This record gives sequence, structure tokens and C-alpha cells, in this order.
Amino acid sequence: MNNLSGIAASNGIAIAKAYILAAPDLSFEKKKVENTATEIERLNKALEISKQELEKIKENARKSLGDEHAEIFSAHLLVLSDPELINPIQDKIKTDQVNAEAALEDVANMFIDMFKAMENEYMRERAADIQDVTKRVMAHLLDVTFPDPALIDEEVVVIAEDLTPSDTAQLNKQFVKGFTTNIGGRTSHSAIMARSLEIPAVVGTKTVTEEVKKDDMLIVDGIDGKVIINPSEEELATYKQKQEDFAKQKEVWAQLKDEPTISADGTHVELVANIGTPEDVVGVLNNGGEGVGLYRTEFLYMGKSELPTEDEQFEAYKSVLEQMGEKPVVVRTLDIGGDKELSYLKLPEEMNPFLGFRAIRLCLERDDIFRTQLRALLRASTYGNLKIMFPMIATLDEFRQAKALLLEEKDNLKNEGVSVSDDIEIGIMVEIPSTAVIARQFAKEVDFFSIGTNDLIQYTMAADRMNERVSYLYQPYHPAILSLVNNVIEAAHAEGKWAGMCGEMAGDSIAIPILLGLGLDEFSMSATSILPARTQIKDLSKDELASYKDQLLAMSTADEVEAFIREKTNQ
Amino acid sequence: MNNLSGIAASNGIAIAKAYILAAPDLSFEKKKVENTATEIERLNKALEISKQELEKIKENARKSLGDEHAEIFSAHLLVLSDPELINPIQDKIKTDQVNAEAALEDVANMFIDMFKAMENEYMRERAADIQDVTKRVMAHLLDVTFPDPALIDEEVVVIAEDLTPSDTAQLNKQFVKGFTTNIGGRTSHSAIMARSLEIPAVVGTKTVTEEVKKDDMLIVDGIDGKVIINPSEEELATYKQKQEDFAKQKEVWAQLKDEPTISADGTHVELVANIGTPEDVVGVLNNGGEGVGLYRTEFLYMGKSELPTEDEQFEAYKSVLEQMGEKPVVVRTLDIGGDKELSYLKLPEEMNPFLGFRAIRLCLERDDIFRTQLRALLRASTYGNLKIMFPMIATLDEFRQAKALLLEEKDNLKNEGVSVSDDIEIGIMVEIPSTAVIARQFAKEVDFFSIGTNDLIQYTMAADRMNERVSYLYQPYHPAILSLVNNVIEAAHAEGKWAGMCGEMAGDSIAIPILLGLGLDEFSMSATSILPARTQIKDLSKDELASYKDQLLAMSTADEVEAFIREKTNQ
Repeated sequence: MNNLSGIAASNGIAIAKAYILAAPDLSFEKKKVENTATEIERLNKALEISKQELEKIKENARKSLGDEHAEIFSAHLLVLSDPELINPIQDKIKTDQVNAEAALEDVANMFIDMFKAMENEYMRERAADIQDVTKRVMAHLLDVTFPDPALIDEEVVVIAEDLTPSDTAQLNKQFVKGFTTNIGGRTSHSAIMARSLEIPAVVGTKTVTEEVKKDDMLIVDGIDGKVIINPSEEELATYKQKQEDFAKQKEVWAQLKDEPTISADGTHVELVANIGTPEDVVGVLNNGGEGVGLYRTEFLYMGKSELPTEDEQFEAYKSVLEQMGEKPVVVRTLDIGGDKELSYLKLPEEMNPFLGFRAIRLCLERDDIFRTQLRALLRASTYGNLKIMFPMIATLDEFRQAKALLLEEKDNLKNEGVSVSDDIEIGIMVEIPSTAVIARQFAKEVDFFSIGTNDLIQYTMAADRMNERVSYLYQPYHPAILSLVNNVIEAAHAEGKWAGMCGEMAGDSIAIPILLGLGLDEFSMSATSILPARTQIKDLSKDELASYKDQLLAMSTADEVEAFIREKTNQ
Repeated sequence: MNNLSGIAASNGIAIAKAYILAAPDLSFEKKKVENTATEIERLNKALEISKQELEKIKENARKSLGDEHAEIFSAHLLVLSDPELINPIQDKIKTDQVNAEAALEDVANMFIDMFKAMENEYMRERAADIQDVTKRVMAHLLDVTFPDPALIDEEVVVIAEDLTPSDTAQLNKQFVKGFTTNIGGRTSHSAIMARSLEIPAVVGTKTVTEEVKKDDMLIVDGIDGKVIINPSEEELATYKQKQEDFAKQKEVWAQLKDEPTISADGTHVELVANIGTPEDVVGVLNNGGEGVGLYRTEFLYMGKSELPTEDEQFEAYKSVLEQMGEKPVVVRTLDIGGDKELSYLKLPEEMNPFLGFRAIRLCLERDDIFRTQLRALLRASTYGNLKIMFPMIATLDEFRQAKALLLEEKDNLKNEGVSVSDDIEIGIMVEIPSTAVIARQFAKEVDFFSIGTNDLIQYTMAADRMNERVSYLYQPYHPAILSLVNNVIEAAHAEGKWAGMCGEMAGDSIAIPILLGLGLDEFSMSATSILPARTQIKDLSKDELASYKDQLLAMSTADEVEAFIREKTNQ
């Protein structure tokens, strides 16, 4: 058997048998039946089991990732109980005297085609719901397993082409010991989720679904990005040792949980975490986060059928702020569009969504949506240490407009007698090259910068990081990226402001020494990366690293930079 | 009637009646027929007229834009003569006893669906051919006009939603006095073609196809971007005067045709042209171009069914070089992918094609295609003053690889006894932010830079210039763009190299003073922009403009920059 290499997406070692999460064979034969009552009974039973499953999955999603993630399954349950869908299936069995499978498929396809043809984006999304639900019912009619992460009840490693947000929402950490996928990179959704769930993961193996069969024993090495299929006794022993070593390593890291992050030569930097929901805060505190550097508010808007209300948002923001106490919480306003769509917000189809109508561009046009969010944030501001930042800022005009709206809503709230903090810092994401280039002009007007390297790198290199054919150009250590990052930090400091980074780069062991040397003030990363980063920084000399700056910025390639840093930091 | 505003895409004034280039109504009734022989005769007659039309269109395209552009119509003619398509239509008329329209549609749809379902991209493209051809035949069966620019035989202004490359290929300057479209901007394909054909054009009017009826009299003001529908006597007189003034202006410009381009304080810069085909060279010389700053070689690869051979390419390159004599010709190697697809080259569908697998990225992987082009260029190098540049360079590695391939093929040719010039400069397009940022590192290895602002601006601002919702972010005067341009020029000069620009920005009357002040050496633009630019530069003081540099680079917004330049240059 081949052992596979992939991208180490979430560290740790998992050893368990494989659970293959792939579509089952749902083909069937259309049959004439005499006893239509039996067929209707079969149908009803399959519907009933499907409902029970969905309830279980929904409950699981709610527990592991919060109410909003569970919403999608409520929609599925509604479909299963809809007489407008169910009655025609039963009728068809009787009238056409066909088996339940054939009737189900015919009626479902009719509805799917009808919804798909609709103008309304929301209605078109309903087609996908019906398709999902029909498959589950069909699987039960055919008595084949419809694999579902939420139904796993023994220790496994999950194998899949890719994991969708709703798949990962259902992973139960008690049983799912690790996962590995064919596609994806360190910044893909599944990788970010793995780190947030603290499950070892290796993504981008290209062929794991082909190489692995049901019940194969697997080792997932999320530290070095390896997958061992049916390991030998010797390999098993080696990796059990590595697993123990990692557990010990975690204990060592844990000793730094309540320590500040201080370099060997005494510079303090802030290590903070990226979060998506109020539920993530526990992980931040457990991992010694000194704050939240990026609260992605999109999750409040996703997996629902309508915009979240001001109150719903207020509760979420308040919850995060209260849990974090005096520690800073940087909230990013809505970054929707691009690859993140909302079913209820009809956005135009774009040829290049990453270069399109998203984030602040959308918020400034749809200021109704934006104002609601700003009001919710302002109302929550008295419950903790809130900082607000705007995503995808490309021009000073955009920042000025966004800030003006914020101040307008602040005035409105005050006039309504609502108390609002007067110490909210207002900053921007630096993720568009133009903004990094003229950071000096921005620094006069913003309170802080947070460099969003995931996007900044892809725009600076003109390479879609999700596109496998050009992902080799996603080069965090490219001297141009370092030069832009340096420019942003220098611009901030020249005006007495601070500069942070909230891309994946901030938690990377090669990037950390570079960024420390460039003078970055705040590093925001997956919660699980914080303690290893703190451990690393403890042994680094900021002054020494700063002395390499000119040399690094004059290098020609990312490889040169990496080799240099590896040598200087013994990695 | 409303007069419309749009984007002035190609200057001059056109006055003529409207010719609406839009799809005709091809709906019909399916009928049972007794006399199937008559129906077959109707079909054959429609096929025959369609063939004659296509021959005429093809001949026209060949004359106005060269052999390669005519190829697409050869493909259409082949479809019309294909018994595998025609026989089943005739059979269907006989067997089903239906009218020719119904038989044509049924059979054509069957083939279209079949081809569309195929894996092979090339075969899928055939579906589009059949669709195009079927529409033409259907129009003749129904005896409705199938509008076609190649068939225009009186003076008109063409009105369309947008003009495709094959539409513009067929415009006959003798009759088409101007055109105006609903969509597009200054850098859209139709705008570039209008300038290359020297036809006045206003694009992006949003509604011209709705506002204008057949035979309305129109004025297209390509100088100020206005369209006047059914003008009054007074308006007509005003615009006839403007037309005359423009003709006189052109005469004044023409006096500078053989002059060098020298600023008021004695600095010489080069004004050169962007071209797409050898046929464009006449326009370059007539407009006083001092060279070719960008020869887009894509057209050699487009509108064909297979890759151009080494010899075909050699002939094209040689023709351009010979016509230009000692004047420099900068050839850009293949920039395909993104929005420019080749039917015979199966490229993956991409979510963000502008950030995808294109240009040098594709050429380095498909080095068979790349080597053929390099060999053709090297063989042509002895016929003139050739410079070669690589598009979409994001890393020094890519440049080194591309240059190595070029030198390898040079050695190969020399070993084969073919003579190759030893004075070919090798440069790069600077159109990706990373390359502009580390231009200093690149300047040590390249012979020259040509700044491709069309792409550089869209990547730097993270805004697709073709996407109307974000095209307001396409800001050539944004201080970040000026800063990157300045960085590239300074880097070039520090190493004794030259820097040019081949984006639309190089021919823009606000940008020209800025670029002159930053020290740009070469301005490459549409041929028709050269004489106006030379006239403008004659009156500008480079030293004065250079003294504004720090001030300009420290400005906050594009609007500030534009207002400043307008004031300083009385525009």
C-alpha cells in the first residue's frame, strides 16, 4: 500500500480505522407493483428514519457549532414533512403502480427542475435541499448506508474528497480522531475548521479516497502531512511514540498558557486568535489567547434563510466580548461575496468573484445591512474591549465612508439613549495591494491595521489560492509580500498605531521570526497555534531578526528567504 | 428622444443612420406538410443563400483582418456542407412530414446537445458553430433579416449590446462610420478594436439598443462620449463643425508624424503602438509610431481550429519586423487563458480566471507550445529590431525559466545552422503587483520593463475591470498605482535599463504628464493616440512635472491626483 503525502492542516497524530465519506450507489430498478400499500409503507418508513437521522444530525451540529449551523437541517426536516412533496409521491405509487424508489425519484426531480428554473436565488437553493433530502430517503429505501459524520459512533479517521462546512459541522470529536482529504490547502475551509476543532488533519493528498478501503487502519500525521495506510507493527509503534511525544509537547506548551508572549530579548507581542462563533472563545482561552484578532462575523449570516437581526447579532457580539473580559476583540464587519454566498441575498454571478462585489464594496451599497451590523456592534461595545475593522478596503474613500456610517449610527444610538463605548478603535484589514502600498496615507486616519495575508498574497501574486494549477504561486515568503508587510508595519509605527496580522501566515513557524523582526505587534492565528508560537518566540531574539531586514527584503525568491530563515533559526 | 452618455472609446465624430445589430425573432410554428419535396427545396435554398453569405463574410474578414480571422467562417461553411447534419434534416421532413423549420431545429438541437455533453472542449465548441449556422439558415427559411456587419453596403452607425471579436472583424470602414454599444469600457475588446480600425466609438451607454430604432439618425461623438439620437438641425450643424474641427486637428497632428517626441524642456521619449496583427503596422506608420511597444501574439492563435505552426508564426513576426525596419518591435509571448480561451486547447474551467492558469504560467507547463513560438521569434529576429517580453511574470523563477527556454532554442537553432540575432533584448510585462514591488531585484536580470497597467490596476485594486459593479475601483491615478509605476521606473534606471508602459493608461492625457514626470521612457498606445500624445508632450515640461513627484505619491486618492494634474496642465 502507498503511504501518502499531503498538507499538514492541523497538528497531532490520529490512529484509527477509515470511515469513507463518499456518495453511496443509489441506482435502482423501476418496477411495476401490485401491492401499492406495501410500497407506501416502505416510503413512510424511509421518511421516518430519515427524519430521525436528521434530528440527530441537527442536534449534533447545534452542540458542536451552535444554533446557526443547525439551521440548514431544520430546512431539510421541513422538506421531509411537506405534504406538497410527500402526497404526490404516495399518489404516484398508487396511480402508476410503481415502486417507491421510482415514485420518489420522479416527483423529486419534478420539484428540483421546477425550483432550479426559478429566477429567485433563494428558491433555486431549495432545489439543493430537496436533492439532499431525497438522497437520504432513497438510501433508506435501498437499505444502503448513507454515510454521515454525525452518525459515527466509534473511533475513526474520516476520508473524503473534501469536507464541506456542513460536513465539518457534524464531526464529533469524541469519535472522529482525524481526517484526510484529496483536495484543499492550509487556508481552505476544512483546514481552518480542523484547527478550530483541534482534530489532526492532512489535506490535499490528491488520492486518499482512491487508495483507502473501508476499515483500512490509518495513521494521520498532521504534524508532517503524512497518511500511513495499514501501517506495519513497526510504523504503528513509531507513531504511537510520536503521538505521546506530541501530547507531552502540548503539556509543555500548556505551561505558557497564562504567560505573556515575550521574545528572548524582551519584546512583548500579542498572540491572539481567529474565531468564527461565540462557541470558539472557549478554545481561545484554553489555548492562552491574549485576545481575539479576527472575529469572522460571516457565520452569523450563513446557513440561514434571512439576514440576522440586530438583536441576534448583538447577543453574539456581547457573548464574545463578555467571555473575553478585558482582552481585546477585533471584529471584522461582514465579508460576504466572493466564495462566500448567502442564499437569501441575490448577488450577481461574477466571472472573477475574488475580484468582485464583496465585503465593504457590498456593505457600502447595501448600507441597510451594514448599519444593522454596526448598531449591533456599538450596542455590544460596553461589554468588553471592542475594536472594529473593515474588510477589503482598497481606497481611503471607502474607509472614510464606512467610518462615517459607524459614527452616524453611534450618534443615532446615543440619541436613542443607548450607551456606547467611546474607546472603540477603528481599523482596516490590509488585504488589497493598493492599501499596503499607500499604508502611510491610511495610517494617518485608521487606529490600526490587520494584515489579511490569505487575500493579500493571492492578489499580490495574481493567483487564486483555491486553484490547484496556480497555488504554487501562493508564496507567503515572497520578498514582495515581505516588502508590503514591512511597509504596513513601518507606516503604522510612524503614526503611533499598531499593526497585526490575521492570515494563516501569522501562525507559521518560518513566518513568525520574519514578522517579529519586521516589528509586527499582534499575531492572530488558529487558537491551537498560539502556544507553539509563544514557545517559539520565547527563544527568538527580535533585535537579531530585525538586523536581517534589509537582507531579506533584497532577496529574489521565496525559496531564498525560507532557506535563510531555516538556517538562522535551526528549523 | 434621449441623448446618451457613454465612454469615449475611439475619437472622431460619426453621423449616419442606425444599423441595429441584434438577434432577429426566429420563432416559428411547427406544421404538418403534405408536399415534403417543396419543404426540402426551401431548406436547400436557405442553405445555399447562407453559404453565399458566409463566403462573402469570410472574404470580408480575410481582407480587413487577415487569414486567421477568416478561419471561423470556414468552420461554419463546413457545417453547412456536412451530410451528417443535412441528410437527417431532409430525412426528418420526409418521415415526419413536418416543415423545414421544425426539422432543422430538431436535428440541430440533437447535435448541439450531443456536442455540448462531450468531455472534449474542442467538440463542445462545435456546438456553438452549429448554433450560429442554424440561426442563419433559420432566418432565411423565415425570410427575416439576419443582421450582419459584413453585409452592410451603405453608410451607418452600428448599434449593439456589445461587439464580439468576430463582429468587429467584419466591420467595413467604408460603410461603418462609427459604433456604439450598451456595455464595455475603454479597455474592452470592442474599444481597442475601434481605435485600431480608427472608427469613432462610444461604449458603455447602457441603453442605446433600447433607445434607438431602425433608421434613426445618429451622431456618435467619440471625443466626448456622447450619442445624439435624431439630432435637430442645430445639433447637426454643431456636430458637423466639430467633425470638421477634428479633421483639421488631425491635420495639425499629422505634421508631427515624422518628428521625434520631445518635451518642452528637451526630453525625448518614445511613442510606440500596440498591435494585434501584421496588418496593423500600416496604421502605426501612418500615425507616426516610433516602434511597436506591444505586439499581442494571441490573435495568431485565435479563431482557428489548431495551434499555429512555427512557419505561420515566423511569417507573421517577419512581416511586422520588416515593415517596421529599424524601429523597435516588442513582441509579447502568448498570453492566453483568463478571458482569452482557445477552443482547441482544453483549459480547465476556473472560478477566477483572471487569477488563474494563463500566459507564462501556461507556457512554462506547455513548453511545446512555448518553444514553437520562441523558435519562430528567434528565426524572425534577423529581419528587424526585435525585443521579446514575457507576460504575467510573478516571480524571478518564472523569468529565469522562460529566459532559459529562449536561450536553449537559440542554441538549437544555431546548431541547425539558422542565423539568429544576438541583440535581442529580453524583458517582462510588469502587470502583477509582486513584480512591481520587487522591480529592483528584477532589474538586475531583465533588459527592460513594460508596465501592463490594464492588469496591474485590476490586481492592485483587487477589482475585475470587466465587472460593472466594481469597475469604479479601476483607478489609474490611484496613488498606489503611481507608487508602483514609480518603483518600476526607478528600479530600471538604477540598473541602466529602460521602462515602458503598454496599458491604456500610457495614452491617457491625464496620465501622460504624470508618467513623463516619473521618467517613463516609452509610451505604447493605440496608434491613433500617438499624434495627440506627441502634441501634448511637446508643450509639457518634464522637469516641472518631475518636481511634483513626492507630492503626487503622498496624495490620498485618485481624485486628488486628477484634480492636481488638471490644474497644473490646464485640462
